[in-house]
Amino acid sequence: MKNISIKSYHPAGFMLRYQKLIHDEMIPYQYHVLKDEIKGVEKSGAIENFINAAKALKGEEHGDFYGMVFQDSDVAKWIEAASYSIAVFHDREIEEKIDEVVDIVAAAQDSDGYLDTRFTVLQNDRRWQNLLEAHELYCAGHMMEAACAYYEATGKRKLLDVMLKNAEHIYNHFISEKAEGYPGHPEVELALMKLYYLTGNKHCLELAKHFIDCRGEDPHYYEKEIKNRNWYIWGNNPSNYEYQQSDMPLRKLSDAKGHAVRAAYLYSGMKDVANETDDKELSDACRRLWESITQKRMYITGGIGSTCHGEAFSADYDLPSDTVYAETCASIALMMFAQRMLKDDINGEYADVMETAFYNTVLAGIQTDGKEFFYVNPLEAVPGISEVAQTQRHIRLTRFGWHACACCPPNAARLISSIGKYAYGENDDTVFCNLYAAGEVSFDNGMKVICSTEYPYSGNIKYSVTGSGNLSVRIPGWSRKYEISKNGAGIKAAFEKGYVTVKVNDGDEISLTLDISPRYVYASEKVPALSGKAAVCAGPLVYCFEGVDNKGDVLSLYIDTEKSPSLNGYDPSLLGGTRTMTVPGFRREAQTALYSDKAPEMAKTELFGIPYSLWANRGRNQMRVWIPVK
Amino acid sequence: MKNISIKSYHPAGFMLRYQKLIHDEMIPYQYHVLKDEIKGVEKSGAIENFINAAKALKGEEHGDFYGMVFQDSDVAKWIEAASYSIAVFHDREIEEKIDEVVDIVAAAQDSDGYLDTRFTVLQNDRRWQNLLEAHELYCAGHMMEAACAYYEATGKRKLLDVMLKNAEHIYNHFISEKAEGYPGHPEVELALMKLYYLTGNKHCLELAKHFIDCRGEDPHYYEKEIKNRNWYIWGNNPSNYEYQQSDMPLRKLSDAKGHAVRAAYLYSGMKDVANETDDKELSDACRRLWESITQKRMYITGGIGSTCHGEAFSADYDLPSDTVYAETCASIALMMFAQRMLKDDINGEYADVMETAFYNTVLAGIQTDGKEFFYVNPLEAVPGISEVAQTQRHIRLTRFGWHACACCPPNAARLISSIGKYAYGENDDTVFCNLYAAGEVSFDNGMKVICSTEYPYSGNIKYSVTGSGNLSVRIPGWSRKYEISKNGAGIKAAFEKGYVTVKVNDGDEISLTLDISPRYVYASEKVPALSGKAAVCAGPLVYCFEGVDNKGDVLSLYIDTEKSPSLNGYDPSLLGGTRTMTVPGFRREAQTALYSDKAPEMAKTELFGIPYSLWANRGRNQMRVWIPVK
Repeated sequence: MKNISIKSYHPAGFMLRYQKLIHDEMIPYQYHVLKDEIKGVEKSGAIENFINAAKALKGEEHGDFYGMVFQDSDVAKWIEAASYSIAVFHDREIEEKIDEVVDIVAAAQDSDGYLDTRFTVLQNDRRWQNLLEAHELYCAGHMMEAACAYYEATGKRKLLDVMLKNAEHIYNHFISEKAEGYPGHPEVELALMKLYYLTGNKHCLELAKHFIDCRGEDPHYYEKEIKNRNWYIWGNNPSNYEYQQSDMPLRKLSDAKGHAVRAAYLYSGMKDVANETDDKELSDACRRLWESITQKRMYITGGIGSTCHGEAFSADYDLPSDTVYAETCASIALMMFAQRMLKDDINGEYADVMETAFYNTVLAGIQTDGKEFFYVNPLEAVPGISEVAQTQRHIRLTRFGWHACACCPPNAARLISSIGKYAYGENDDTVFCNLYAAGEVSFDNGMKVICSTEYPYSGNIKYSVTGSGNLSVRIPGWSRKYEISKNGAGIKAAFEKGYVTVKVNDGDEISLTLDISPRYVYASEKVPALSGKAAVCAGPLVYCFEGVDNKGDVLSLYIDTEKSPSLNGYDPSLLGGTRTMTVPGFRREAQTALYSDKAPEMAKTELFGIPYSLWANRGRNQMRVWIPVK
Repeated sequence: MKNISIKSYHPAGFMLRYQKLIHDEMIPYQYHVLKDEIKGVEKSGAIENFINAAKALKGEEHGDFYGMVFQDSDVAKWIEAASYSIAVFHDREIEEKIDEVVDIVAAAQDSDGYLDTRFTVLQNDRRWQNLLEAHELYCAGHMMEAACAYYEATGKRKLLDVMLKNAEHIYNHFISEKAEGYPGHPEVELALMKLYYLTGNKHCLELAKHFIDCRGEDPHYYEKEIKNRNWYIWGNNPSNYEYQQSDMPLRKLSDAKGHAVRAAYLYSGMKDVANETDDKELSDACRRLWESITQKRMYITGGIGSTCHGEAFSADYDLPSDTVYAETCASIALMMFAQRMLKDDINGEYADVMETAFYNTVLAGIQTDGKEFFYVNPLEAVPGISEVAQTQRHIRLTRFGWHACACCPPNAARLISSIGKYAYGENDDTVFCNLYAAGEVSFDNGMKVICSTEYPYSGNIKYSVTGSGNLSVRIPGWSRKYEISKNGAGIKAAFEKGYVTVKVNDGDEISLTLDISPRYVYASEKVPALSGKAAVCAGPLVYCFEGVDNKGDVLSLYIDTEKSPSLNGYDPSLLGGTRTMTVPGFRREAQTALYSDKAPEMAKTELFGIPYSLWANRGRNQMRVWIPVK
């Protein structure tokens, strides 16, 4: 794909439901949270920080900085999500709110281009001294992404100009003035690349490449930084090289390591730079990291970062269901990485992972009412142990409301609102359908596609084409068979690396049938936590089993994999509309002793599953994805 | 049982092998370690600390205190273990070494009875100010236990008098002068009770009862203490009430909580005081705690303390095999608790747990050569994940040599050297055979028993009796059947709460046959980590499966519980002599993909097991106790 920015995507079906949830619930709500206008919600201070920074710049009396060091990024993510959303829903009221926020942000920029409210309000003399902890480049990156989205949605250059000036300021500091160092929390790399793609500004490309090239060249940079500054925010350990992705030059990386969100943002930026500069060595490193993640360190749900210690990748095959971290943001970052891999190499495996992460972990992050959120996404939860045991204190049985470190909710909002950019792509006269996102898509090459489907609850997908060229549609790895027809007649289409490509002319209707019949999935024997277990999937959806559907006890359940599971009909009244799963199996009798030499009696039963992303919407419950096989 | 101190036990068979290992290897080795006479071993400084303290008392120039705050207890545990050992082996050379060490210890006692080298050397003005961290009462307790053992073995009163004077000093401080507070690390309670049992000194009983009575009455004691002192050792959190067993008065406890070693020492002291003072309320609390441990929070191996966070008890049924702590010392402490429960109530369940903890976790703590030790006892270990994953950094694949915090090795030494006190008991004219410890036992009631057996590798046990009375022999909960005969003729003996009692006369020979045929064991469905799995046991031994016996890969193995496992013949050349186990089962084919919808092919195979206590004697290996059932 030449261009990951399709012209527009107007959703229907499943995607519409989620984009509406973001538009109707999350974006207005988050706006008021950021402005501290909702009673009973933890103070954000994020908008106020920008107002105070503007006052500080003018030498006026002003309030204190409030919140986390990366508080600015909450505003940026909101602008970005809201911009994507108005591109779809054309909501004037929200656009006015964005305009208002953009004005507030712009006023907080210093005359030299610097923009970070924490330092402008609190410690203007300490800029760029603490890359390890201070998140200045991270916040800048998110605001760059916001600027691109706002411009694309509205054509308004105000924030784009602010952030180009900010990028130039950063360029001067790190390139012209040769300041040492690289971002503590990577993100600005991919953001600079977005700015570059949109504006062609070469300094943005050069700066992104610089941060990629110098990272880890001197693994001890952060230690030197600490010696020079002698002040701290949290007191992060500068020698935690793997955690902070500074243990070696990025081109040498093979294993996905450290903080999972930071890692996947970084790998996304690496791949952008590699794609743009034809850097094969860097591209090869990205491929090794991709394989490390997807072949050895990823949950079946597309969750990554299996340990809460540092919210980080763990060792190969260490994928516990219960002490897991699998942050929502990490799966969003994984989708970003997948999107960039796909851009360079049309290959179904990238889109497969993108889809798995989306339909399972990313959507699990959001309550069906759009008001509560998971940061951590376990594959097993047991009241009495989850939340309570020291190793599972971070596991929650119900979602949080908005809270101080609100990284995941606005991140999910921006991802879902821009899902069209992941679902579709184009290249000269070809359009790529990566995900099966119902709705209307316009491409820069002049083609248009209307996708009609009840996917993921149906395997039938229809594309009505305007214009002529090639329609290249992914065939998922999980679909054991597929059928494709053109204007009602079955056809054989060229299949290459997970995509079938069909020549299309104006008015053609291409129908694709995928096999979403339920399947049992088994983990490699190398995953100790999953020995003897199976999961149940249907299409891209991983199913889970909750107590509320299974007599309050899923720990006693076994699956009978000799018999087939069956997908029940669509129930519009359940969990906002879904299809449940019935799985043949057994329930073992209760055993009163902790240990007994009496083999447990097994009684035939049926297990009832729901899509994993919908768990924990009906109170505190046992939940399991992986069930022992009997 | 009236008296847990049988007169003497001279081991044979299995117990002799381990007691010899302690005598021949550990005691001489530890002596030289404590004196810093072994090159390449981390400095102990423990004996030197006593020498320096003596110099400090005399106002002489002296060296610094070295090591952990509880360094003195290493010397105490060595004296105790060595004393038990000379009671068996009558080794003059070791006795002289103990005499030498006792002289060194005695010289370090202040004229007022105070004895703790850290404070005497470093901070004499800070005595008794930091009960939370300073371990003064803990070290005193261990030295009291040493004093009792030394006196019992040699009749020499020197250390006993030192520690009675020390107890009186503590009595004056906490009782006469009404100083507030209770021990940060419980242990002195059970030690004071030992002193009381041996000497009848009422102040010891009163003081033990005082520490039990006041603990947790004011849960905020340690917070007040910190305010008063304003100095720290490690900066322990004084509000960690559960961890430090200060959250409520001990009589109200129901759940086993906090640091597992501290907890079980404390419960042992509680039960001693309850037994001696006929305190039913306290006894009931002990029973509730016993049930909490053994019915909900104990590993099949008798390991307790399932989380490395605080080396502590976790929630009910949270018994992970891989992130486990299960410290060797905690199982030793559990044996002590069991012994005290049994003293008050002859009931097989106490001895069953005592035996499980001994043959599995305690013995697993020791390398077959007696030179390396486990602190942590996992039930699953996987090279590449154990030691590496953040949640499993504390899991070791091979044992440690002696190191700075050397709590477990000398603790195991004193336990094994005094196993007779656990194996046997008496009450008026009855002798109790709790474990099946081969050897010769003399009782204070005048009876004598010679126990001949190859137990735990045989279920045949023969008791030759001298004197007359009752022989009360435990029938383990795991033995599905048993036969008992007297002088060759089968008899029916009264069975009550896990013990059969036979009237015996001088010269009688009682033979017992237990069923040690292998059995599969299943965990309660409430233990999430063990769903779908089974373990294999034979007699008191839990078996495990190591890579070295199973083609390097135990993660692919399944057990076929429809078929019976078989115990192989005794192999004297393997691991110091043992019986391996052959278990029918399956090996799944390797799956290259992390996740696959292809059901794994299963090939019939045999699994080879060894007793759990012997694992990790042949290098770094995969190891599993719980195997999925196919």
